[in-house]
Amino acid sequence: MAEFDLIERIRARAGARADVRLGIGDDAALLQVPPGCELAVTADTLNQGVHFPAGAAAGDLGWKALAVNLSDLAAMGARPAWCTLSLSLPQADAAWLDGFLDGFLALAGEHGIALVGGDTTRGPLSVSVTAMGLVEAGAALRRDRARPGDDVWVTGTLGDAAAALVLDGHVAPPSGDVPAVDAGAAAFLRRRLCRPSPRVEAGRRLLGLAHACIDVSDGLLADLGHVCARSGVGAEILLAALPASPALAAAFDGQRPPLQAAGGDDYELCFTAPPALRDAVALALEQAGVDGTRIGRIVPGEGLRALAADGTPWRPPRTGYQHFG
Amino acid sequence: MAEFDLIERIRARAGARADVRLGIGDDAALLQVPPGCELAVTADTLNQGVHFPAGAAAGDLGWKALAVNLSDLAAMGARPAWCTLSLSLPQADAAWLDGFLDGFLALAGEHGIALVGGDTTRGPLSVSVTAMGLVEAGAALRRDRARPGDDVWVTGTLGDAAAALVLDGHVAPPSGDVPAVDAGAAAFLRRRLCRPSPRVEAGRRLLGLAHACIDVSDGLLADLGHVCARSGVGAEILLAALPASPALAAAFDGQRPPLQAAGGDDYELCFTAPPALRDAVALALEQAGVDGTRIGRIVPGEGLRALAADGTPWRPPRTGYQHFG
Repeated sequence: MAEFDLIERIRARAGARADVRLGIGDDAALLQVPPGCELAVTADTLNQGVHFPAGAAAGDLGWKALAVNLSDLAAMGARPAWCTLSLSLPQADAAWLDGFLDGFLALAGEHGIALVGGDTTRGPLSVSVTAMGLVEAGAALRRDRARPGDDVWVTGTLGDAAAALVLDGHVAPPSGDVPAVDAGAAAFLRRRLCRPSPRVEAGRRLLGLAHACIDVSDGLLADLGHVCARSGVGAEILLAALPASPALAAAFDGQRPPLQAAGGDDYELCFTAPPALRDAVALALEQAGVDGTRIGRIVPGEGLRALAADGTPWRPPRTGYQHFG
Repeated sequence: MAEFDLIERIRARAGARADVRLGIGDDAALLQVPPGCELAVTADTLNQGVHFPAGAAAGDLGWKALAVNLSDLAAMGARPAWCTLSLSLPQADAAWLDGFLDGFLALAGEHGIALVGGDTTRGPLSVSVTAMGLVEAGAALRRDRARPGDDVWVTGTLGDAAAALVLDGHVAPPSGDVPAVDAGAAAFLRRRLCRPSPRVEAGRRLLGLAHACIDVSDGLLADLGHVCARSGVGAEILLAALPASPALAAAFDGQRPPLQAAGGDDYELCFTAPPALRDAVALALEQAGVDGTRIGRIVPGEGLRALAADGTPWRPPRTGYQHFG
């Protein structure tokens, strides 16, 4: 296959939206932004050997490359609209590309986001996605609006993806040996790593309720730390309150804090909201079909303290994945 | 340097625009699209060893990574507004990053485009840019609007970048030996390869005049071929009419057709316009500060014929760079 065959293969499957005036096949796509909306734009790259191992399933990679970007739009409360895909491939492999598109477009279809352009080039396997979303002007969720007294919430469960990395030998266990896990639980944890569900609907429903929001990609403490730094506040987190899946709780019970507070790759939302809105927040998340858990509170000052069950401060072995760290 | 230091180094130098409601530092940027405008979006990646050699000057790479995207916006007649930058680096090298930003931001400043987000990751050297521009709704230049009888025009000169690749031994000469070139001419040709000038102002001024437009990145015949295919028309090009720089004409005179018609990397605009608008087109290009040359015409039917000075059809040794070709 030549480059234009690859592009045609992608174009033939890219989704449509009425607001895409011109899609793949010209020098640029032409898109119609509705009045009253701001454009939310985010870009994330996944590189082989850094973000995923050689031999990763093509469909998982396609899904995840889009999911990490949709998770950023979710954290702004934006509706996904359009995306571009820049794909560097060592060779033109039609079967691999089809599998990649299966994953990418399955998630795109779930969220109604249209693939409108991009690039296919020869090079080490790498996927760069830029995602664009729409959010009512002035209403977006930001990192810099947390206030002392706010509850700190998190959607879903934490630590599942990190546990999957331990299970598959990509990361050493926080302590002891790699635990024995039954096949069903292992499959659940791996799916959480490879096919995360960006919390787009939750982000939308938190507009007007949450003060500040971020998605948990580098690890809860690292990401909540960004919210604190940008908002000029501190936070206290209760480790015992961090929500765990049954699979994680069963197999990794003694190793939960590092996996849940510092593991990363969760793609849940961490947000702050005033205590007076607890019921409204709980209802919003219920309508979004996702669990929500209060895990701590915003305090005056600076710094982030994670407290063990006995009230002693806990320090993670590392705080979030650092490229070049 | 850690990842966040790299990001901070980029953020500190990213340009500002009043319509950037929130720039680098949150989950996504927030941008304000003015009413009556469509959003033009394009994405292009440059990979080491494919698009540029190892050891390429960081500043040149920064310039060119943005230039190739601005050239796509120019071909739509769009005003550059915002961009994202996804940078994969083998190691965190502050001096290299500063040099890269010198080139990237110099060109960004010339065109008033703001860097609003992106990603820095570890990996083989690769630069992915997504550029966003604004164009009056319904007015954008497209590939699919050429009509029989149109003149075919090109801005600037063709073949300079291809000649530079020959000079530096990256590509074999079309015939014979690599010619001797004086230092001034060699520097001019290399600058055309490494620091192309996207024809943004020309694209803007061609709105309402040109029928179809494309930027010349893969080579004139390949790119004009896309216009013909998308418009359902044919074209005839006169090789003798292709505009050449003095440097190219002096050193590569006997090798001009393959370099000029199929060389690529020119980042000039190729467009079609009705003969009745010749004076208006010439004035528009003059106001944009760029030369324009009529090189042929659009004809009914299909296919693209390049004619030598004696009227015989000429076939290029290859038609445009093909990844995976």
